[in-house]
Amino acid sequence: MMLSESYLKKRVLITGGLGFIGSNLARALVAQGAEVTLVDSLIPQYGGNPFNIDDIRDKLTVNVCDVRDPFAMAYLLQGKDFLFNLAGQTSHLDSMSDPQTDLDINAAAQLAILEACRKSNPGIKIVFASTRQLYGKPDYLPVDEKHPIRPVDVNGINKLAGEWYHLLYNNVYGIRACALRLTNTYGPGMRVKDARQTFLGIWVRLLIEGKPIRVFGDGLQLRDFNYVDDCVEALLLAGASDDANGKIYNLGSSEVVGLKALAEMMVELGNELKIGGGYELIPFPPERKAIDIGDYYSDFSLITHELGWQPKIDLREGLQRTMAYYQANHMHYWNNDQ
Amino acid sequence: MMLSESYLKKRVLITGGLGFIGSNLARALVAQGAEVTLVDSLIPQYGGNPFNIDDIRDKLTVNVCDVRDPFAMAYLLQGKDFLFNLAGQTSHLDSMSDPQTDLDINAAAQLAILEACRKSNPGIKIVFASTRQLYGKPDYLPVDEKHPIRPVDVNGINKLAGEWYHLLYNNVYGIRACALRLTNTYGPGMRVKDARQTFLGIWVRLLIEGKPIRVFGDGLQLRDFNYVDDCVEALLLAGASDDANGKIYNLGSSEVVGLKALAEMMVELGNELKIGGGYELIPFPPERKAIDIGDYYSDFSLITHELGWQPKIDLREGLQRTMAYYQANHMHYWNNDQ
Repeated sequence: MMLSESYLKKRVLITGGLGFIGSNLARALVAQGAEVTLVDSLIPQYGGNPFNIDDIRDKLTVNVCDVRDPFAMAYLLQGKDFLFNLAGQTSHLDSMSDPQTDLDINAAAQLAILEACRKSNPGIKIVFASTRQLYGKPDYLPVDEKHPIRPVDVNGINKLAGEWYHLLYNNVYGIRACALRLTNTYGPGMRVKDARQTFLGIWVRLLIEGKPIRVFGDGLQLRDFNYVDDCVEALLLAGASDDANGKIYNLGSSEVVGLKALAEMMVELGNELKIGGGYELIPFPPERKAIDIGDYYSDFSLITHELGWQPKIDLREGLQRTMAYYQANHMHYWNNDQ
Repeated sequence: MMLSESYLKKRVLITGGLGFIGSNLARALVAQGAEVTLVDSLIPQYGGNPFNIDDIRDKLTVNVCDVRDPFAMAYLLQGKDFLFNLAGQTSHLDSMSDPQTDLDINAAAQLAILEACRKSNPGIKIVFASTRQLYGKPDYLPVDEKHPIRPVDVNGINKLAGEWYHLLYNNVYGIRACALRLTNTYGPGMRVKDARQTFLGIWVRLLIEGKPIRVFGDGLQLRDFNYVDDCVEALLLAGASDDANGKIYNLGSSEVVGLKALAEMMVELGNELKIGGGYELIPFPPERKAIDIGDYYSDFSLITHELGWQPKIDLREGLQRTMAYYQANHMHYWNNDQ
């Protein structure tokens, strides 16, 4: 598929557009000649950061508002060809301490967005960013899309509702929508101030600050990772293909790694980049243990088969790019008081 | 298990307590010496009807309020030993025309109730009334609890979220909770004014009004049914057993019947009761067809095995009691203007 033709001069809305994946997606869409509008709440605890689009600021429109604002969203959705619906509350711990906010963003706002599309723009195509967190602690590995759903936190339950509203509106109202269940995604633009978006973020910060990475437990928990460019390509493919409508696809990687081994790789790269660094194994904090899922990695053969996607950037290369990015730009992502 | 000992002098809150199942449950609990408080919003479109507890009105406390009122609910939950959490928006069509209200009641209010329990009454035991509607169109029959979840309407998605919040609070916070996935439940006290709660309700009304029952499609769709006393017994068993904590159980019946055959049985009973009646096959209304699930009946062997429950009232006996009840009491359930 020639992706560039799919988005040329198309009007595209990205929720969470100043965030990690949204901003990288925006960069790809701008390069393909799309007319891009970004929606972001810029809530400090979330992923949005204006610096993420510093290089493309004059090539797109930024609209700061919250996806929980149904009037703003209804207006912004008008006339759009595509919605990449990436905004979300992503912190598992925050979803437990403030479950209502998680529900409002990850479920209620999604329903309001879909209702706005149904009423005013039923021809739009929507790609929803979901999460492998929905599977909970896996029954088997790798986890395919038929694996039972078993969220382990409020966030997982609300993300599931948000995902299924999309599929339902596709099936019942013909509003073309699909969902990608993202695994751990990393790369330039991710939140590194803390672990709210991904534990890899805080690992990068600790390394650059010269502090040891803290690996919970024995560090043997397996994970798969996608570099953000690979994730963006999956989003673009899903948006461009009507075969994806009504479907859920796992993303994932065939490069599966234990967390201790990952820490070792990052320390090694830190040395190469003259960042230095080290890691330590520490016991699981109880609130983390309660929602830990053990090993996880995805079977992503469905999206490979149906949309031709597979990840291209290997973990070492992706981590090297990521760490070099934050080595150069960390002052835009945290300061020493925070 | 001697159920009566489990509830003697126990303080029990029932949401949806003036509704169909809630009122029948209240009757059983009052008989077992429980101190029962009913919460009901008495929203006209929902299931609550003060006449449902006419015979036990002086043996319990009624508190009219909405489960969406977090302050009222937090107060009412204090000091209770049991919560039978039955309040819900049950209309599938209403959930599609007003999805936000369905979300507020079936998901957001449930989360607020659980938060109130976590903060002020973590020792409470909760039984949540869920629905077989979560399974969507079955992959196989009978449907057991391992069947994939695939809601076909907004109501199904929100009920799922509500159910899983309960399980999550059991698993993470130790607030003892379990869920029963009810199949079609019928009996005295069900909403018969319209089909918002169960299609059997409007069938009973049509028969008593001397109008033909309308069966959608070819009438060969299979269903299973529980008489309300059997459903109440399952709720009581689940409440009394700590083996049920964190579990989901299907209810169901081994008496599986096609809708046309059901209509024929009701017409026959109508004749015996001197109500008379008839039925007609009519094409599926499009909005019904879109969310129709084909055949459905449950595998309820898990609750039989673990809690010793099985239905005792056969369909003919249950329908006979139900129709006789509405023959005598219909003036309390609808009037000719509505």
